[in-house]
Amino acid sequence: MTIRGPSVPTLPLLRSFIATLLGTLMLATALMTEPAQATPKATEFTLANGMKVVVVEDHRAPVVTHMVWYRVGAADEPPGVSGIAHFLEHLMFKSTDTIPNGEFSKIVSRLGGQDNAFTGQDVTAYFQRIAKDRLPTVMAMEADRMVNLRLEEKEVLTERNVILEERRSRTENNPSALLGEQMDAMLYLSHPYGLPVIGWEHEMAALSREDAMAFYKRFYAPNNAILVVTGDVFPDEVRKLAEATYGKVPANPDVKMRGRPMEPPHRAARRIELKDPRAGRPSFHRSYYAPSYVTAEPGEAEALDLLMKVVASGSTSRIYRSLVVADKLAASTGGWYSGSARDSGKITVYAVPVDGVSLAAVEAGIDKVLDTVRREGITAAELERAKKSYLAEYVYESDNQASLARRYGWSLTVGRTVKDIEEWPDRIAKVTLEDVQKAAAKHLDIRRSVTGTLIPEKPDDPTAAAAAPANSAPVPAARAGGRT
Amino acid sequence: MTIRGPSVPTLPLLRSFIATLLGTLMLATALMTEPAQATPKATEFTLANGMKVVVVEDHRAPVVTHMVWYRVGAADEPPGVSGIAHFLEHLMFKSTDTIPNGEFSKIVSRLGGQDNAFTGQDVTAYFQRIAKDRLPTVMAMEADRMVNLRLEEKEVLTERNVILEERRSRTENNPSALLGEQMDAMLYLSHPYGLPVIGWEHEMAALSREDAMAFYKRFYAPNNAILVVTGDVFPDEVRKLAEATYGKVPANPDVKMRGRPMEPPHRAARRIELKDPRAGRPSFHRSYYAPSYVTAEPGEAEALDLLMKVVASGSTSRIYRSLVVADKLAASTGGWYSGSARDSGKITVYAVPVDGVSLAAVEAGIDKVLDTVRREGITAAELERAKKSYLAEYVYESDNQASLARRYGWSLTVGRTVKDIEEWPDRIAKVTLEDVQKAAAKHLDIRRSVTGTLIPEKPDDPTAAAAAPANSAPVPAARAGGRT
Repeated sequence: MTIRGPSVPTLPLLRSFIATLLGTLMLATALMTEPAQATPKATEFTLANGMKVVVVEDHRAPVVTHMVWYRVGAADEPPGVSGIAHFLEHLMFKSTDTIPNGEFSKIVSRLGGQDNAFTGQDVTAYFQRIAKDRLPTVMAMEADRMVNLRLEEKEVLTERNVILEERRSRTENNPSALLGEQMDAMLYLSHPYGLPVIGWEHEMAALSREDAMAFYKRFYAPNNAILVVTGDVFPDEVRKLAEATYGKVPANPDVKMRGRPMEPPHRAARRIELKDPRAGRPSFHRSYYAPSYVTAEPGEAEALDLLMKVVASGSTSRIYRSLVVADKLAASTGGWYSGSARDSGKITVYAVPVDGVSLAAVEAGIDKVLDTVRREGITAAELERAKKSYLAEYVYESDNQASLARRYGWSLTVGRTVKDIEEWPDRIAKVTLEDVQKAAAKHLDIRRSVTGTLIPEKPDDPTAAAAAPANSAPVPAARAGGRT
Repeated sequence: MTIRGPSVPTLPLLRSFIATLLGTLMLATALMTEPAQATPKATEFTLANGMKVVVVEDHRAPVVTHMVWYRVGAADEPPGVSGIAHFLEHLMFKSTDTIPNGEFSKIVSRLGGQDNAFTGQDVTAYFQRIAKDRLPTVMAMEADRMVNLRLEEKEVLTERNVILEERRSRTENNPSALLGEQMDAMLYLSHPYGLPVIGWEHEMAALSREDAMAFYKRFYAPNNAILVVTGDVFPDEVRKLAEATYGKVPANPDVKMRGRPMEPPHRAARRIELKDPRAGRPSFHRSYYAPSYVTAEPGEAEALDLLMKVVASGSTSRIYRSLVVADKLAASTGGWYSGSARDSGKITVYAVPVDGVSLAAVEAGIDKVLDTVRREGITAAELERAKKSYLAEYVYESDNQASLARRYGWSLTVGRTVKDIEEWPDRIAKVTLEDVQKAAAKHLDIRRSVTGTLIPEKPDDPTAAAAAPANSAPVPAARAGGRT
């Protein structure tokens, strides 16, 4: 298997994750008539070798989703070896002492299952969805490759071309992805979240078998992993199977998370302008550095989720109603809060102007909306609608085994607890109008932001004769204080 | 000794270094009548333990300058431990097995000498200037602390307060330094040159004795050091002394430079606007990522030095004549090329507008000058004057033992050779008008730049009621293509 689903969590994946992060207990009780099983709850225990296990029962159909999460991601890569976490994820589908090269996914497929894997800044996860009676087999296989991975030079080099091609198709050929990558590199002044999960091309091209094995040996071990099984199983069953498979893998006492550099203060507004003739239309983007669910004050991340739902999500959002409907400045708009990372979160907004409207006008329109929210907050009706909207999404996504497994797996992997996860709906319900206004005032802070513009033009050629100055700026009359 | 000279090379130090980097052979022959010894040349050899030694004779007075350069600097720090290279430099003045705490500099002083040390991104250097008959003593002392450093917890904690205070006085209380720090953090998307040599405050506050000892043991060894002695000595004398002192220190076979992450492509112009009420006047700053003398094509770095001399150095420069003299836009201007680093260089320009002129107008004025140079290059007269100006500076600085020692030490430490250093004047002399125009066209590339503006205002308070939008932008009429 060389091409796998969302190996690198792109924005849509993260957003979907955000939407599935919260538990559904209270909501399900209050609102749901379907699905039949309304309130999934997790059972957790730990194996003798330190591997954490979480089971979420769902007996509606005789299938299971089996995921192993490693507490390691791109942000744990050694300097200069960007992309190795994701590369290793690919290489985990090569051979072990008992599974021949490339057979892992074929075996799962022959058993009637599906499998996949993905890598983020904080997590690397492997999963299978399969008939319940096949669970022992996939657990044995996953435990096997936790410790017995074999990498042959030739396989490694072949797979390196695959990830390079993945970068070319997803990033290099996508001006919007390129801008996002450069904006992240600017947003983080020191933290490795500024580096792309897939890696910088020049570093990917040098990734070696030794790099992959060193990363594997350092981070892949039962005491650095979390097993999540959702579906038609009982906790005791999973415990027995886990002890018979993962339980046989010795703990690695040397597993130790790299101390990641944390951000220094962000002191000033930053901007970037990318010109690329391949960009279909001009677009405006802004990211704000913010806390994550792990690092925020109690209730703050929940308030940010609700805030951004009201401000930027969908056609009832403030930005859409103001820029698209009322002022006819933008053809599309959007935005969200990403709070799922271990060390920090991010607030994002974007807009695409309609023909004849400048990016600056769209930016001024968005700033007007954000400024109003910072000062005045949102309305009670908006808050209520946002809460209900999240509840509906959570309920819907709780109906899906993979979403459930991802909800628990991701949160636990970044350091949260089952209790955190399952109290989530309560915490969302408790957010007040004041909480939202305070979060907006505090975190929509231009000094912690990067503003990016994507312009469908040939980049200025600094060698072109008689070109207009590449960086001529509008000249406001004020001596200082305006953006210059 | 707790307060020492330019421990962290600030811009003036780097500029002075640039100015002293080049050899003086040809120039001295052609131009000089004084000093008596016109053409210093180095003798080099290597000790059995791998320590490189360079001797530059200067018999005019019975004094010597003794420097030890370690091939390690802030860019070699482990992630999250920023500032440790500079902190260790401070701690090297604490105790060894034979020198009591804080006595090192006092002993040098009692011998009639002066000593100091500094840390850069690529180098850490220790030096003494002393009567020639005291050279054996300082060599023995320097060799002693290369291997016998003792650090007591209490001394380490006390000294940590010193570096924190150093950061506060030089950076935190200096808006211009803060802007420079944030601009560097943006200019480098991945390379550690983006992190400040002195360190991020939150990381400095956590630096420990163990961090310092680990860094010391990893990087301080004769096979990772270069000894430079200038002054009233002969190479054979230095060889004997070095063998008797440094020669006794065993090589560390594990010394290995960390592979530093190199930069990905820089794709788009970046900007930052820092508001700080402590800033005396508004100012405009721009940095371009460029090659260094180590990484440039042959002749390219020399061309950049000459280019920036013509464009931005002093009152005869193009920027000064255009913005200060002709158009009366700026009160002061400047700029230079910094080519002395191992992995990349930087081009810098700045200007302070006169009252009533906007930063945008100053920026447009500078861009006009740079654009003309990119298209048309400079004139033969300008090139000739720039060459002569460098020659005069080099000659002047060659007259100084410390400058000479620094010239050889720095260049060798970043990977250049004695031959590179001594051929320098020839290479400068060979630069053509076409070389300069090509270098300008290639490297004054806005896509590889960061533009910073410093505005003497209170930062926008995002919580202020009824504040104007923090980030209201001038709205140009064009739909796209202008800066928005």
